[in-house]
Amino acid sequence: MFAHNKRLQYTVRVSQTNPGLANLLLEQFGGPQGELAAATRYFTQALGELDPGRKDMLMDIATEELSHLEVIGTLVAMLNKGAKGRLAEAAEEEAEIYRSITGAGNDSHLTQLLYGGGPALTNSAGYLWTAGYIDTIGEPTADLRSNIAAEARAKIIYERLINATDDPGVKEALGFLMTREVAHQLSFEKALYAITPNFPPGKLPAMPEFERVYFDLSQDSEGEEDAPEGAWNSDENFTVVADREAQHAVDGGDGLAEVRLDREEQAAVEAAALRTRSDPDANPTTGAELGSLPE
Amino acid sequence: MFAHNKRLQYTVRVSQTNPGLANLLLEQFGGPQGELAAATRYFTQALGELDPGRKDMLMDIATEELSHLEVIGTLVAMLNKGAKGRLAEAAEEEAEIYRSITGAGNDSHLTQLLYGGGPALTNSAGYLWTAGYIDTIGEPTADLRSNIAAEARAKIIYERLINATDDPGVKEALGFLMTREVAHQLSFEKALYAITPNFPPGKLPAMPEFERVYFDLSQDSEGEEDAPEGAWNSDENFTVVADREAQHAVDGGDGLAEVRLDREEQAAVEAAALRTRSDPDANPTTGAELGSLPE
Amino acid sequence: MFAHNKRLQYTVRVSQTNPGLANLLLEQFGGPQGELAAATRYFTQALGELDPGRKDMLMDIATEELSHLEVIGTLVAMLNKGAKGRLAEAAEEEAEIYRSITGAGNDSHLTQLLYGGGPALTNSAGYLWTAGYIDTIGEPTADLRSNIAAEARAKIIYERLINATDDPGVKEALGFLMTREVAHQLSFEKALYAITPNFPPGKLPAMPEFERVYFDLSQDSEGEEDAPEGAWNSDENFTVVADREAQHAVDGGDGLAEVRLDREEQAAVEAAALRTRSDPDANPTTGAELGSLPE
Amino acid sequence: MFAHNKRLQYTVRVSQTNPGLANLLLEQFGGPQGELAAATRYFTQALGELDPGRKDMLMDIATEELSHLEVIGTLVAMLNKGAKGRLAEAAEEEAEIYRSITGAGNDSHLTQLLYGGGPALTNSAGYLWTAGYIDTIGEPTADLRSNIAAEARAKIIYERLINATDDPGVKEALGFLMTREVAHQLSFEKALYAITPNFPPGKLPAMPEFERVYFDLSQDSEGEEDAPEGAWNSDENFTVVADREAQHAVDGGDGLAEVRLDREEQAAVEAAALRTRSDPDANPTTGAELGSLPE
Amino acid sequence: MFAHNKRLQYTVRVSQTNPGLANLLLEQFGGPQGELAAATRYFTQALGELDPGRKDMLMDIATEELSHLEVIGTLVAMLNKGAKGRLAEAAEEEAEIYRSITGAGNDSHLTQLLYGGGPALTNSAGYLWTAGYIDTIGEPTADLRSNIAAEARAKIIYERLINATDDPGVKEALGFLMTREVAHQLSFEKALYAITPNFPPGKLPAMPEFERVYFDLSQDSEGEEDAPEGAWNSDENFTVVADREAQHAVDGGDGLAEVRLDREEQAAVEAAALRTRSDPDANPTTGAELGSLPE
Amino acid sequence: MFAHNKRLQYTVRVSQTNPGLANLLLEQFGGPQGELAAATRYFTQALGELDPGRKDMLMDIATEELSHLEVIGTLVAMLNKGAKGRLAEAAEEEAEIYRSITGAGNDSHLTQLLYGGGPALTNSAGYLWTAGYIDTIGEPTADLRSNIAAEARAKIIYERLINATDDPGVKEALGFLMTREVAHQLSFEKALYAITPNFPPGKLPAMPEFERVYFDLSQDSEGEEDAPEGAWNSDENFTVVADREAQHAVDGGDGLAEVRLDREEQAAVEAAALRTRSDPDANPTTGAELGSLPE
Repeated sequence: MFAHNKRLQYTVRVSQTNPGLANLLLEQFGGPQGELAAATRYFTQALGELDPGRKDMLMDIATEELSHLEVIGTLVAMLNKGAKGRLAEAAEEEAEIYRSITGAGNDSHLTQLLYGGGPALTNSAGYLWTAGYIDTIGEPTADLRSNIAAEARAKIIYERLINATDDPGVKEALGFLMTREVAHQLSFEKALYAITPNFPPGKLPAMPEFERVYFDLSQDSEGEEDAPEGAWNSDENFTVVADREAQHAVDGGDGLAEVRLDREEQAAVEAAALRTRSDPDANPTTGAELGSLPE
Repeated sequence: MFAHNKRLQYTVRVSQTNPGLANLLLEQFGGPQGELAAATRYFTQALGELDPGRKDMLMDIATEELSHLEVIGTLVAMLNKGAKGRLAEAAEEEAEIYRSITGAGNDSHLTQLLYGGGPALTNSAGYLWTAGYIDTIGEPTADLRSNIAAEARAKIIYERLINATDDPGVKEALGFLMTREVAHQLSFEKALYAITPNFPPGKLPAMPEFERVYFDLSQDSEGEEDAPEGAWNSDENFTVVADREAQHAVDGGDGLAEVRLDREEQAAVEAAALRTRSDPDANPTTGAELGSLPE
Repeated sequence: MFAHNKRLQYTVRVSQTNPGLANLLLEQFGGPQGELAAATRYFTQALGELDPGRKDMLMDIATEELSHLEVIGTLVAMLNKGAKGRLAEAAEEEAEIYRSITGAGNDSHLTQLLYGGGPALTNSAGYLWTAGYIDTIGEPTADLRSNIAAEARAKIIYERLINATDDPGVKEALGFLMTREVAHQLSFEKALYAITPNFPPGKLPAMPEFERVYFDLSQDSEGEEDAPEGAWNSDENFTVVADREAQHAVDGGDGLAEVRLDREEQAAVEAAALRTRSDPDANPTTGAELGSLPE
Repeated sequence: MFAHNKRLQYTVRVSQTNPGLANLLLEQFGGPQGELAAATRYFTQALGELDPGRKDMLMDIATEELSHLEVIGTLVAMLNKGAKGRLAEAAEEEAEIYRSITGAGNDSHLTQLLYGGGPALTNSAGYLWTAGYIDTIGEPTADLRSNIAAEARAKIIYERLINATDDPGVKEALGFLMTREVAHQLSFEKALYAITPNFPPGKLPAMPEFERVYFDLSQDSEGEEDAPEGAWNSDENFTVVADREAQHAVDGGDGLAEVRLDREEQAAVEAAALRTRSDPDANPTTGAELGSLPE
Repeated sequence: MFAHNKRLQYTVRVSQTNPGLANLLLEQFGGPQGELAAATRYFTQALGELDPGRKDMLMDIATEELSHLEVIGTLVAMLNKGAKGRLAEAAEEEAEIYRSITGAGNDSHLTQLLYGGGPALTNSAGYLWTAGYIDTIGEPTADLRSNIAAEARAKIIYERLINATDDPGVKEALGFLMTREVAHQLSFEKALYAITPNFPPGKLPAMPEFERVYFDLSQDSEGEEDAPEGAWNSDENFTVVADREAQHAVDGGDGLAEVRLDREEQAAVEAAALRTRSDPDANPTTGAELGSLPE
Repeated sequence: MFAHNKRLQYTVRVSQTNPGLANLLLEQFGGPQGELAAATRYFTQALGELDPGRKDMLMDIATEELSHLEVIGTLVAMLNKGAKGRLAEAAEEEAEIYRSITGAGNDSHLTQLLYGGGPALTNSAGYLWTAGYIDTIGEPTADLRSNIAAEARAKIIYERLINATDDPGVKEALGFLMTREVAHQLSFEKALYAITPNFPPGKLPAMPEFERVYFDLSQDSEGEEDAPEGAWNSDENFTVVADREAQHAVDGGDGLAEVRLDREEQAAVEAAALRTRSDPDANPTTGAELGSLPE
């Protein structure tokens, strides 16, 4: 179970209120790469995990991400503290309040009007957090790769936020949070490679005849040079199939689809086809023609 | 631009109609790990990509995933072909139709009623596809890791579907699609490691004092053994911080939050605090007490 | 403003409770083609409408759709009435209750557990209603076409529901609701064609050189017959462009993309490209190789 | 910041695996009245709170709800433990696996296929958790009422789940969780009533001429008896306005809408109205008529 | 299956970068009327289609819409190219970067921070694309009408975008895309009217006694003139029912709802009603009164 | 059933157009605390309600909320009337139009481009209305509390909007709408307390040993003072459990989780655990190390 200590993992010092910046920081509070997504991702994995060491790691890191959620949410609350009071107590003229909530050039109007300046579980555009951001599927050779990628993405968003603020206290706290994503990625990498083998992920083997094939499906027009080749599509690593005709029906069949229908199904399908047939021989007058200017 | 050839990448042969199985397959048509997610993931990355070789690879694979979307969607259409006709043409008694659309034990009732048996952009529980599944952020050292993870997840879902059907044609087509996920993962791995360095992702360096620290936040009660240690939290690789007091305010501050308010902000915040204060000395009668049975 | 009369537009007579059927009917209560979608579609159009006659029609029909929402919701409430009591008052053994809420073969377990058997604003698979279903855009030559199509779709869903029940009272009420969709489509058609011209919709003319062109982008392999031609792609009505090379860069340009960057932008883009370049000459060892079984 | 202890708040003892029941329990894991919703609701309020006592209470209860999330998630994991192994290791015949994942009569097929039997952040119908469930707005006289209501709702869902299982360990754990919702409601009630006054919520006074008015908008047809009156609409407490004509334009105006447009706006609006006018005098032939059978 | 040619369908020439305009264009990339919605709409219809000519048309147009998605996405990528480099490489002062990402007056801050300037599957307000935009239901007499409407809406959004930019290259490419929507509408109209009959859509006939009835549900107060009548509600085309009493219970019943309950259901419903009865004779003190200022 | 009168419940007089303000008002049209949410909340409760007096009240208030939806939507339409005409008829230079739709500092660009200035079912940040906002669960002792809370929240959002506009006609109409929320709260309070008992909500009693316990889970570091105590956690009302060790496994068990598996389940789980074991003794080289700069 969880316990809470009133001290933050990292001290928050904000030099002045700034609802516009608060709104950008929501990206890491309630956004897809944010701390709620991180915490719930690892927490759900921990609950279903069979390996005790990995379960421990997942719960350690989930708990830290909850603590990060608290840090980033506290940054938002501090940056919005002035706006919260002014709007709630109507401490200014209406026109002044209108200007201040629409003047930040981003969606901070929403944060103020709807959430009263509190940290909201939305991204910086007001999109409500959704569990669609969580890609846990319950197989560690896939989930650990998802975690590695998630930490990489979160690191980048922090980097962009750091590039966009010059408040030293905010910058420093964001730097800490960014650094921890790097540390977590390191742990997840170790846990993944401590599973042997971990590739291909899961249990079923791939079909050998298609595992090392590269289909060159994006091409330039004939006679013109295509993109540079690299290890991802080189002959060294793959059989490259560039011929258009060889790219379809690669199983050697006719590339068509079929299903066996029983007699009643067959009759119903034929009835439906007949009823909804577009007669290829007709050239009917249409609604669009009725609605056009006479030619 | 895109062109379309009427032959599928892999021939589809279904031995009999089965709306319940069709519904399970939707997982890879309109589900989070499915082919639309894969195609749009790589396509959006390709559009923003600056590296010509990688852009080519992303467009090659996006195009193949669209072709896989066609294969899996065609499987769904074949498996539902009988149901489509029967319901549309009312070819049976109402009670019989009712039983057939609610009898599969899963959400195939939705597919039939709402989508008429056509392949729908939902997962197997009818959840509408959302771009929240796409985690493209426009930085290749993160996006390629996301792609690696996405291919790993998709491989697993195909594996589970293969385990759940014994129709040989369906099994074979799913095996092909599963194999191609493995092949794509191989390409993305090559492209990632052809960037040097690619870790930490992005450009800003981590703060060295926190990069190799592991916070042991999930612990057992005192005196009892915790989980086994592994490379992900070993002293070899990390400084482990297990002491509860050392885990907060790791910057050496007080772990609290502060913001400088100007005078007007200060006044408004104080007014709000005063107006909404919960008096700690009161023990008020409450609505719940009004609504309780007399004791 | 609105007023409410306690009598329904159509009397509801249900012969026996049936939570499974109730759940199917939700499709037209909180589903994409359902009555809430219809009512809010016409209501939002009415509010923004400038033409008094059309505004009146839109409000008439919006009001009727609200009344249909009441009819379909009442059908759901009646069909669930028994389940509502049994679960709430725990009038049976737990195992019996478990069987009854999971035994309908569809999502009625959700309706009962979460909504207590009341009509819920979801479709038959429990997907929450979203305003993404509403396609009002505030231009009557488009919105009236959307309304015509919406009525056509709703008519079909009612038809499928009618095919799936043999309760005469339910069937009759659904028949009434289905019929009214036909009547509304008739009105919307009249209102659309009373605007002249109404095609192309809106105000800007199309570019004449591309208005009557049909791009034949889906083709069979060379030498094999393609699909039958019809009025939608016949030479009579369109210039058909089937040659693959003639299908791209139809403006006569090079089909590539360019943007003029200022000097600082240019420098930053080049720095980003360099930093994230995948070296085409490398064949790096990858994570996947680390994780594979030794060959 | 948060810490985690490996012992649960309440011991979980499940007598046998049961994916169908696991799926029902998801309602309180990732459903609208579930524990993630509770935890994030109080946590976001705590971050924005100005009153130290209330902030402490909110964080106490948020932390407990996270611990409940762990209990309910652990119940789900235990109930699914067998299914997880069987599907992942393909420990049975395909047809057997197919039957077991579609046979529960609810959406457990999704949980198994997509989430591998782990607890998923969805409700029991697979709807992904969304922050739309969180109604925090940052004003305590409203938020505490929202919390009271949320605890009441959660109590009911637990009650329904308890009614639907006869596994004694599951029943007991659910009973504990249900009881804690009651305890939390008691605390929130005390905190609300310790604010004086707390009604009307917020700061702005109501308009006295409309505060104690009840509009009787739902009526029976003339001459027939309406519903019984109660304290909610009695003359004792309210001025009841039942006359239809007195219900609109209650400000004494004409009940119409107007806006002052400048000259250019006026001209543009008139142009738009003219262009999109539906001619009331026309009886045009329509698309529907083109498409009908000849009469 | 699909193939890709590196040349765009229409050459993209952008005269200068402009993240604010890029953000508006997202409306047609990941918005409800945008190209992904169009492509997936026709593609899902094609997969379920039984008529070979119509299937071919749907796949032709789906493939073209994918090519349009590429054009509009490429426009976005070009307009954001400068922003992408500057933010990623931190090529400017933080305050300068902050100003540039919040200064466009729209949601381009999101596109830059979260998506790194790449084209995102959102509309211009950052709302994630959802399959709720797709209204395919698998019956051609409805789906073709939906397609006609969708093309009409898309045409209008392009028109509005064209009105809002003066970059000639952007304007021209948008003009091409707009024109193609007109062309597609023409094809869909031909295909619809080549089905005879196509009205009413589907198979079940309407109830004749309600098919040509118009309910005048929105009325002015007595004695005042209502809106002008038109073909949509004229006596010529419809029986108009304006009398309030004649508008309800149009089946001639009592307009009430009934269901037959078995004995156990009846008992449980009565128990629930009794337990939750609001006593009409009570005038209880309430929570709101507890919380009000003393009068 | 519903009827509509062309007169609004409250006359709308707007002194000048203002798309930025229109956009803020959308919060109460299509936002979570807005009028559509209110109307559908009470309407769905009314349909499932067994008590005739309460059903009448719910329908009365649902009908009034629909009428409020009309008032707020009409305000939006009036404020956007100029923008609607200008953009649709392209009555100005493109650059001028661009400035006007992106210059409001909030999301009014979306409202204009996508919805043509009509009122849209979104909140002020363009988030599409979702039925996730509706918390009806079909048990009156919970639903009435939800309604009380919903009215309290809506009252606050109106208050904030009133604080942000100085247009007297808009202010007055918003004041009316705000006042009616207060009146509705009063009615719902009366109806709730007319049910006896109404606490705890529902039917099942709480477990007495945990009902009056308060877990002090958020604490300060040792030796430092915690937050002020209040009635919500005072010894007078609760047994406070502050000792960390006493907070877990409160049932007296071991705080762990167990499930009985049958033999086949046991074997499959063990196989899965073995296959996916992270070896705690390994210190493998990882992908991150491959991608790092050489040290």
